[in-house]
This record gives sequence, C-alpha cells and structure tokens, in this order.
Amino acid sequence: MVQIPNTPTSADVARLAGVSRATVSYVLNNTSAVRISEPTRRRVHEAARELGYVPHAAARSLRAGHSRMVLMPAPAIPVGPLYSGFLNELQWALGRLDYTVVQYGTVGLQGDEAARAWAELRPVAVLVPGAELGPRGVGVLKRSGARAVVTLGPERVEGAHALLMDHDAVGQCAGAHLYARGRRRIGVVVPEESGLEAYSRPRLAGVRQALHGTDATVTGLPLAYTEESAAQLAARWRESGLDAVFAYNDEYAMLLMRALQDAGVRVPEDVALIGADDLMLGRLLRPRLSTVHIELPSGRDLAELVDRAVRDPGGEPEVHKVLGASVVQRESS
Amino acid sequence: MVQIPNTPTSADVARLAGVSRATVSYVLNNTSAVRISEPTRRRVHEAARELGYVPHAAARSLRAGHSRMVLMPAPAIPVGPLYSGFLNELQWALGRLDYTVVQYGTVGLQGDEAARAWAELRPVAVLVPGAELGPRGVGVLKRSGARAVVTLGPERVEGAHALLMDHDAVGQCAGAHLYARGRRRIGVVVPEESGLEAYSRPRLAGVRQALHGTDATVTGLPLAYTEESAAQLAARWRESGLDAVFAYNDEYAMLLMRALQDAGVRVPEDVALIGADDLMLGRLLRPRLSTVHIELPSGRDLAELVDRAVRDPGGEPEVHKVLGASVVQRESS
Repeated sequence: MVQIPNTPTSADVARLAGVSRATVSYVLNNTSAVRISEPTRRRVHEAARELGYVPHAAARSLRAGHSRMVLMPAPAIPVGPLYSGFLNELQWALGRLDYTVVQYGTVGLQGDEAARAWAELRPVAVLVPGAELGPRGVGVLKRSGARAVVTLGPERVEGAHALLMDHDAVGQCAGAHLYARGRRRIGVVVPEESGLEAYSRPRLAGVRQALHGTDATVTGLPLAYTEESAAQLAARWRESGLDAVFAYNDEYAMLLMRALQDAGVRVPEDVALIGADDLMLGRLLRPRLSTVHIELPSGRDLAELVDRAVRDPGGEPEVHKVLGASVVQRESS
Repeated sequence: MVQIPNTPTSADVARLAGVSRATVSYVLNNTSAVRISEPTRRRVHEAARELGYVPHAAARSLRAGHSRMVLMPAPAIPVGPLYSGFLNELQWALGRLDYTVVQYGTVGLQGDEAARAWAELRPVAVLVPGAELGPRGVGVLKRSGARAVVTLGPERVEGAHALLMDHDAVGQCAGAHLYARGRRRIGVVVPEESGLEAYSRPRLAGVRQALHGTDATVTGLPLAYTEESAAQLAARWRESGLDAVFAYNDEYAMLLMRALQDAGVRVPEDVALIGADDLMLGRLLRPRLSTVHIELPSGRDLAELVDRAVRDPGGEPEVHKVLGASVVQRESS
C-alpha cells in the first residue's frame, strides 16, 4: 500500500512562514484591502510552494459568494472546426479576463435537471449553446449565485442574455441561391444523426421560407452519414426529378457528391449542390463546392459580454443577433 | 434595475418542510447512515423544489472531503471524430457510475501551474491526455485530494495510472507498409500547426524506426494546413525524388493528394500515399486513401479504471498499453 499524502492546510503554511492564518489568506487571495510587506508575501508564497498547498476554489468561492468559473455544457456531438475555433477563442478571451472556463459533461441530463447540476458548481456565469435551457433553469442558476446566464440559440430565454443564432438564415441563403441559379426542384438533406435536429430543422425551414410563393418545390432528404445511405439516395435520384440540393453542411455535401458522381449524376449539370460551413475540404473537391459561409460571434465579444454581465448582474438582459450567413459560389452550383 | 433573487439556503428548506437543517442535509445528500421516513423525505424534496434550492457541490465536497468530479483538461486543438467519439463514450460511462466530467479550459496554463489550477476544484480524479503532467503535478493533485490521476500519453508518470498511447506505432505501421510496397524514398508530413507536435514527432520517429538499417531514406516534410502550403510542397515534388509519403493523418493526406494531382503527380503511380485515422473522407477520395486505423481505448474500460482507482487510492498504479494501429490498404499506396 502506498501512503496517501496528507493534504496541507493554510495552518501548515502559516506555521512554516511564521505568520497568522489570516495573513496566509490575505496573501494567497490577493486581498488588496490589507497591506502586507513584500518580504512577508514572499515568505508565504515560498511556504505554500514548498508544502504543495493549493487554495480550495470552493472554499474561496464560499467566502466570496461566487467563483470566477464560467460554465458551459460540453458539446455532446463532435464539433466541427468552425465551432472548435470559436470555443478556443472564447476560452482564451475569458482567461485573459481572469475567468476559468469549465465544460460540464451533459450526457444524460436535460432541461432543468441539467441547470440544477450546473448550479451545484456555483459558476459565476453560465453559457448555454442550443435550446437546452428554459426560464425555470435560468431562475435556478441565478438563485444559486450565477450573475450572468447567456444563451446562444434560436430564441430569447426570459432572464438570460441572448446571442441569437438564427439557422433559418443559413437555409434561406442556400434556397435563394439555388433558385437564382434557375433550379426549381430542390432537395434539402436532413441528417439522421441525433443531436443535429436543432440545426437541421431551421435550415430546412429557411429553404421553405426563401421559396415560399415561388414555383419551386422543397423536399426533405433524410441521410445518414454513411456511404450506404448516400448510395441509396443517389440510386433514387433520377426518379426524384430533383435538380438541386442543399446538403446541410460541407461534410454531408462531400458524401453526397461522391455518391451522385459514382451513380453517373453530374454535378452541377444534373444537380446543383451547395453545402455550409465553408470548410477547406469543399475547395479540395472537384467540382469545387459552393457553400454557405457562417459567421459565428467573436469569442472576444462574447467574453466581454460575460464580464459586463457579471459586473452588473441586475442590468437588463442584452440581445444580439450574431449569426451571419452568406453564399460562397464555386463550381458545384 | 432587476431585483437579484436571494439564494435560498438549507435553513429555508428546513423551515418550509418543518424539519431540522440536519434532516434536510441527510435527505438531500442521500445519507444512508440515518433513517428518515418516506413522507419526511418527500416533504424535504418538495420544499427544495419549491424554493429552487440547489445543494452546493463545493460545500458538500468540503464536508465529504472529496467530490464526484472527474476533471480533464479541455482539448486546445480541434478534436477529430475519432477522439470526440472516445470522449463521448467516456463521459457517458462515467455518468453511469455517478461521476461528473468537467473539462477545464487550459488555455495559457502549462505544467505544474495547470495542475495547481485543476487542484483548486478538488476533483476526485483527473484524466490527462498528452504529456502535460509531470510527477510534481501528480503530487500537487494527490495532496489536494485527488484519489486517482490517470495519464493518456506516450510515457508513465510517477504516481499516476498510465494508459500508454504509443504514436510511434502509427508511424511504424505506415513506414513498414510503404517499404513493403517497394518504396524507398519516403516523406513524412509534419504539420506546422502548433499543438500537434506530441503526435507528429513520435509518428515521424516511428517511420524512422521501421526503416532503420534498410536502404530507404526518410524525409520530414513540414506542411501547413492550407492550399498554398500544399501547392508549394507539390511544386517541389519531382526534384525531391520522393516516391511515397505518410501524410500524418487523413485530412493532411486529402490536402496533399489534391495538390499532387493538380501538379500532375500521379497517386499511387508516382507517389504512394497513406494517411491515418481511417476517417470516412478517405473512402470518398479517388484513388481511395490507404490509412492507419487507430484504436483508442474504450471509454467504458477507462471509466472502470477511474472508479477502481478512486475506490482504492492507495493501490499500485496500473499501466496499460491502449493504442492499436493497423494498416488499411486501399488504392493510394
């Protein structure tokens, strides 16, 4: 049996440094209200390092009434390069403002239950992508001490700041583009993978909105992210009579383009094809893939919104539209 | 100004339910040592729900001496579908064992400094991918109460359980395969993007190991993940005299294959090409991409190791080799 090391306490640090526990607490919590000489500060830091003493964030936040923790639910689906870059910039920007970002594993938790689990960690701010959180959940978080709750989703949630991400706009762009290219029988890929409905439903709705009142038809095309599913869809293509498709995103577009080409359906002559996300792989395809470029909010702007909200927890919730969408036309449409 | 809601306390719950604070604590913390009648339990739960009372995980862990939190550093680079699937399975499996997975934003923190920051949250277990943690960091975590520290990386770290992920093996596989296909002048893509050195260095070393003592040469090929960088590399290809390339992974392989084809270099006639990760996109390329299939540890097995270690914090550290690598030959090599 290996001996489990004893956890050093602030009393141990105080003893080694020859100061009071209060002094240890002032120094390690950087309290500016109390003046402590530089040599004493140094002695406390050295003793803490020697003993391997780490302040307890929880105890500190119990005293302070809140932490510097910004909590986000961890993504439950593989995140693409676009969202991953956004997350990194956000973490970096919050880190510069002295916050710590913690992504909470949400597997199996939903709605208010998730909010209660998050609240147990007493984050000072909570950022929730998607449509997971309702007004009750916001209330739970605020009562447990969260000074700011920010949602990134399609709609406002009462009591929370909202960054509105309107995925309808992505579909509207794609639909209007295909119509302008002279196409009238338009398919829209709807991924069968779970977790994507929050994005695929508004994208399909956006295409319908863009083509409402025109002579074009819109057909939803369920597609799993497998070669078999794509081959089946491609085999039925001619009888479907579709002359264009918005393929949900660039990765589904690559899958479908390959299956169509293998089935002898020509892109763009027989079918105009457009993806979304503007990934590099689209530029590597032949024909080069048209796409909807999506602009996510800047991680730095979001970090500043969080900080503003934490400093003024009683302020009116801010609402910003943050999703930009524009067509990048290449050779496939 | 919006009124900030008061945080309800366990005293409020006790008052509403007509029980003592101790009873509230027993019920909400599921203490089995004390018998409490079902109607009383129900009354406490109802009062807690009505008031929106959430127990404080930190206060609870201060009392219990530890939490149920498993901490991992959040990935600082975009994670591919392979690693993302592993993370999801791991979170799910730990959730079933009643742990909560928290991914800590590590931007800007390194080595022991990162360990100290993690320790402040008092996790009961810490899982560290890569080679970020040294023996001092393990000590910091254990002294602050972590019952298990598990590393996923190339080497053991003293005091921690180790899942050894030997990326040399990925390079060895690729090198041996290209040699067996009759190639002798072998290039190895080394991504210029930061954060990938921990994988690219051992992969290059593995190719060298596989070809050591043979008549083959090995050349490192720096490549940024941009079309420009790939086009530059492809333009110099003929003078390089290379007849094969291990392209780091499937995504860099796709980028390089396109640039080579655009430059009139034929795959596989002029250059045999192999990637790694066995992503679907490799099967969508023409010629179909050969790849090294990598087997990550099962998330379920890892969750069970964590649980075992938490229950027996004094046990000998376990060491397991977990990375499987095997060549999937298709048309590009």
